[in-house]
Amino acid sequence: MDRSTDHPALDLSLDAAELTARLVDFPSESGNEKDLADAVEHALRALDHLTVDRHGNNIVARTHLGRAERVVLAGHLDTVPIAGNVPSRLDDEGYLWGCGSCDMKSGVAVQLKVAATVPEPNRDLTFVFYDQEEVAAHLNGLGHVADAHPDWLAGDFAVLLESSDGEVEGGCQGTLRVLLHTTGERSHSARSWMGANAIHAAAPILEKLAAYQPRRAVIDGLEYREGLNAVRVEGGVANNVIPDACTVTVNFRYAPDRTPEEALAHVREVFADCPVDEFTVDDHSPGALPGLSHPAAKAFMDAVGGTARPKFGWTDVSRFSALGVPAVNYGPGNPLLAHKRDERVLAERIGHCEERLRAWLTS
Amino acid sequence: MDRSTDHPALDLSLDAAELTARLVDFPSESGNEKDLADAVEHALRALDHLTVDRHGNNIVARTHLGRAERVVLAGHLDTVPIAGNVPSRLDDEGYLWGCGSCDMKSGVAVQLKVAATVPEPNRDLTFVFYDQEEVAAHLNGLGHVADAHPDWLAGDFAVLLESSDGEVEGGCQGTLRVLLHTTGERSHSARSWMGANAIHAAAPILEKLAAYQPRRAVIDGLEYREGLNAVRVEGGVANNVIPDACTVTVNFRYAPDRTPEEALAHVREVFADCPVDEFTVDDHSPGALPGLSHPAAKAFMDAVGGTARPKFGWTDVSRFSALGVPAVNYGPGNPLLAHKRDERVLAERIGHCEERLRAWLTS
Repeated sequence: MDRSTDHPALDLSLDAAELTARLVDFPSESGNEKDLADAVEHALRALDHLTVDRHGNNIVARTHLGRAERVVLAGHLDTVPIAGNVPSRLDDEGYLWGCGSCDMKSGVAVQLKVAATVPEPNRDLTFVFYDQEEVAAHLNGLGHVADAHPDWLAGDFAVLLESSDGEVEGGCQGTLRVLLHTTGERSHSARSWMGANAIHAAAPILEKLAAYQPRRAVIDGLEYREGLNAVRVEGGVANNVIPDACTVTVNFRYAPDRTPEEALAHVREVFADCPVDEFTVDDHSPGALPGLSHPAAKAFMDAVGGTARPKFGWTDVSRFSALGVPAVNYGPGNPLLAHKRDERVLAERIGHCEERLRAWLTS
Repeated sequence: MDRSTDHPALDLSLDAAELTARLVDFPSESGNEKDLADAVEHALRALDHLTVDRHGNNIVARTHLGRAERVVLAGHLDTVPIAGNVPSRLDDEGYLWGCGSCDMKSGVAVQLKVAATVPEPNRDLTFVFYDQEEVAAHLNGLGHVADAHPDWLAGDFAVLLESSDGEVEGGCQGTLRVLLHTTGERSHSARSWMGANAIHAAAPILEKLAAYQPRRAVIDGLEYREGLNAVRVEGGVANNVIPDACTVTVNFRYAPDRTPEEALAHVREVFADCPVDEFTVDDHSPGALPGLSHPAAKAFMDAVGGTARPKFGWTDVSRFSALGVPAVNYGPGNPLLAHKRDERVLAERIGHCEERLRAWLTS
């Protein structure tokens, strides 16, 4: 099959909703973004006001107008697996249905429309299109670009076009996952006094979790809400054996005013007097400050309107934050519909989002 | 392959240790006892003083001498899977090695020797050889005989020739397994306040278990030791989801002075004030009283000597107890070697066990 005939070049003269529909019809499940990356690169190279760079299936296009500020507009090209929801369709109520319609081909369409239609922005622009956001963190294309070409991502402020229901979601909370292991000694359960029960040893860990009072933190006017939770517990050898090992997997979601080191120290302190034989950090992604006090962010808020909300979940804004670039989420989709079979986006919100960005970048 | 040529008829004139070696060399893993059951039936039918009945691969042979008491000598024919430990071998220190040497072909050899050499016992005798003891309870041949022909198992006292290191082990403890389920409500772990954590809800269950003080009970002079333990705990959906379900599997091993109903009521009471949404009885096998105050048991203790010990683990003596027949474990093997690759039995203990039984049955 000649895929190039399946997927004609992207026509950036379509309106944002039509372009979103074309993008939904262009399958790009994680790991299979090459064709779409090719099409995006091809479309961007046709625009004289942009220079285009490529690293793997990640495309970065930039203006070089010597403006006082540079802002980054970023979005991922991949989707979760298609679930019988491609090709796209538009219903009578104005919803565009299809895999990625919300997360986040509508956001990518907005990026492409701004790239094509704002040749002389009031701030220098960097457009980033990256792969493998929906899978393991180490595969994430934005992370690969950050490692290989951090200069491509330089900027004063970044907008990630992730679905946020058309509201600005500032920063993101950090997420730390630790494994708390308790140990004991096996014995037959008919002679339990000869063993030591590792599941019973986990009782104080669950007590700490059940009694934990999570903190709320106001940063740049946004209230973040932390949480410390067991997400898994696992112990047991056989129905007649006193278990010698138990593991509680704890997830700490923390406000971005804690550094990763502070977050880890806090969790260690919570369980300091529990009989934890091994404390393993299984995963750790720092939070991102909303950066709403930055002038570029203030101008952005004025242009897009509405009231900024805190972002509780972890997103790639954290990667920008780690590069010293304050970042927010702002996209047309409803995040609650992401990854669902009935994923959809209100078509007129896509154009609205494009207009608001254009207003900010041309005022 | 003609199995009948592989396995010659059992020669009951061999001494007990030699006969044990022949039985070890006659594979009879659970579910494959037919050939051995055939050989046992054949050997017993040659003995004029016994009537022989068969139900499946279970053989019951009885004297009918009109004695005042009847005692049952029972043993299972099956072994756990062979682990490179067949055929048998005798080492320089007098140990007979091989799968089943301890559990419990040495006991079966003792049964067969007594059957062959005590034609006029002072008590009527019932010999029971049964299949599938090492696997699921519903497959157990003794249970099948108890259901189909309870009269075949009638008696005043029973000796199960399970390995007990040559000491009398009285009765057995009961075992009850319950599943304690807690429930909650799922949410993304970044917005944990929107959910309810089922693992945290299990904290009081583990607290109860950790604080539980098990009872000791003296019955017929034997001290039983109870135990209430989590043997498994399981909860969790994904690393970023507040779990809506958690299950703690609890095993209560209880002294035989509690009825099954009392044992269950006790466990319900322990967790009465915990947030258990579902309490499921997963398995329940009652205990067995040692019955050492029975005259036949007293005479037995006098004949075999030593001091009776309590049996903590659950054994088939419980099936006799349920039929109203007090029962003890008494066999030549060391129970700690059962099911092991290096399973073995001290050969001279087999003949010793046979002699002690003969002394009891002929004095």
